Amino acid sequence: MNNIDHLSILESQFNIDFSDGEIKGKNLINPIKKIKDLHGIFEDEKAFSKLDSDKIIYEVQAILPVKEGHEGGLFYGKTIIHPGKVGDEYYMTKGHFHQKENRAEFYWGIQGEGMLLLMDKNRRTWAEKMFPGSLHYIDGYIAHRTINTGKSDLIFGACWPSDAGHNYREIMVNGFSARLKEIDGKPQLVSS
Amino acid sequence: MNNIDHLSILESQFNIDFSDGEIKGKNLINPIKKIKDLHGIFEDEKAFSKLDSDKIIYEVQAILPVKEGHEGGLFYGKTIIHPGKVGDEYYMTKGHFHQKENRAEFYWGIQGEGMLLLMDKNRRTWAEKMFPGSLHYIDGYIAHRTINTGKSDLIFGACWPSDAGHNYREIMVNGFSARLKEIDGKPQLVSS
Repeated sequence: MNNIDHLSILESQFNIDFSDGEIKGKNLINPIKKIKDLHGIFEDEKAFSKLDSDKIIYEVQAILPVKEGHEGGLFYGKTIIHPGKVGDEYYMTKGHFHQKENRAEFYWGIQGEGMLLLMDKNRRTWAEKMFPGSLHYIDGYIAHRTINTGKSDLIFGACWPSDAGHNYREIMVNGFSARLKEIDGKPQLVSS
Repeated sequence: MNNIDHLSILESQFNIDFSDGEIKGKNLINPIKKIKDLHGIFEDEKAFSKLDSDKIIYEVQAILPVKEGHEGGLFYGKTIIHPGKVGDEYYMTKGHFHQKENRAEFYWGIQGEGMLLLMDKNRRTWAEKMFPGSLHYIDGYIAHRTINTGKSDLIFGACWPSDAGHNYREIMVNGFSARLKEIDGKPQLVSS
């Protein structure tokens, strides 16, 4: 911002397409998670082992205007989770607590159908339905994972503090206390 | 969140309409700013004094899931600035730094045309164009004001930290170092 002249009128730094959440602008990051990045997430390891390890399960687009860990800043992103299942579980994200545990986050559904899986520190797990226009406040100290329960891409937006960080380890080691499974053709939460 | 049963599947807490930014859900606040709340903002005091003091200039809708001042939380809102002018200045918000100065904010244009006026601590002022889909990162230590330069409502969304707070005083006392005026039929920044 140090190279802006006094009285300048500038274009917007970024642009978003509300229909698909697509972000345009400089210095975006675009992490992609493939089957090979998701070992230990799904219950049915046999079904998992049969999938192409390079198959893309979800992809993120994010604006990081300040460095990860910077206090007071915000990040803004969009995630696409492709449709599909591993055994009776739907494609989903790894899930995480925040590293700085009291940091909150907003999610909002843009396209498709899904669930936001939430777990508190007492390992109580519940879910909120995601759909275009759904808006979710994820309080601090709450682990969160998103799950595509539909037949098309689940796309959602997010805004979170730049010093929130990600604690994936807790979920990798102990998982959530419930799994969302397709049972009798519909998503149901089952203790794990 | 303490009354949620383990394994519950809930509706979304809030819903947003991407076309007009309207938020639905519990515990929304809806502050409204009328002409009588905006003394000292516009340069042309004579033109200002002729306006109906109960005329609504802008209105906000916001989700405050935690208390103002709570560390780690986030707020989410929508602002409508109605179209109009006071002398050669467009209807605009009061403008503020954050109380906790390093706190950042995201704004995004939803409807209409406007400008995001920005001023750093050295009193250098510039603007970014706002329009449907424009997305703006407002870094910490940057004062911000929004201005409706169009003929219809300017509607924009926002996400900011729950401990950011508002410092209106600095702007009430010293103003921005530039004003956006309609000159030769278009918005131009002029040192003040």
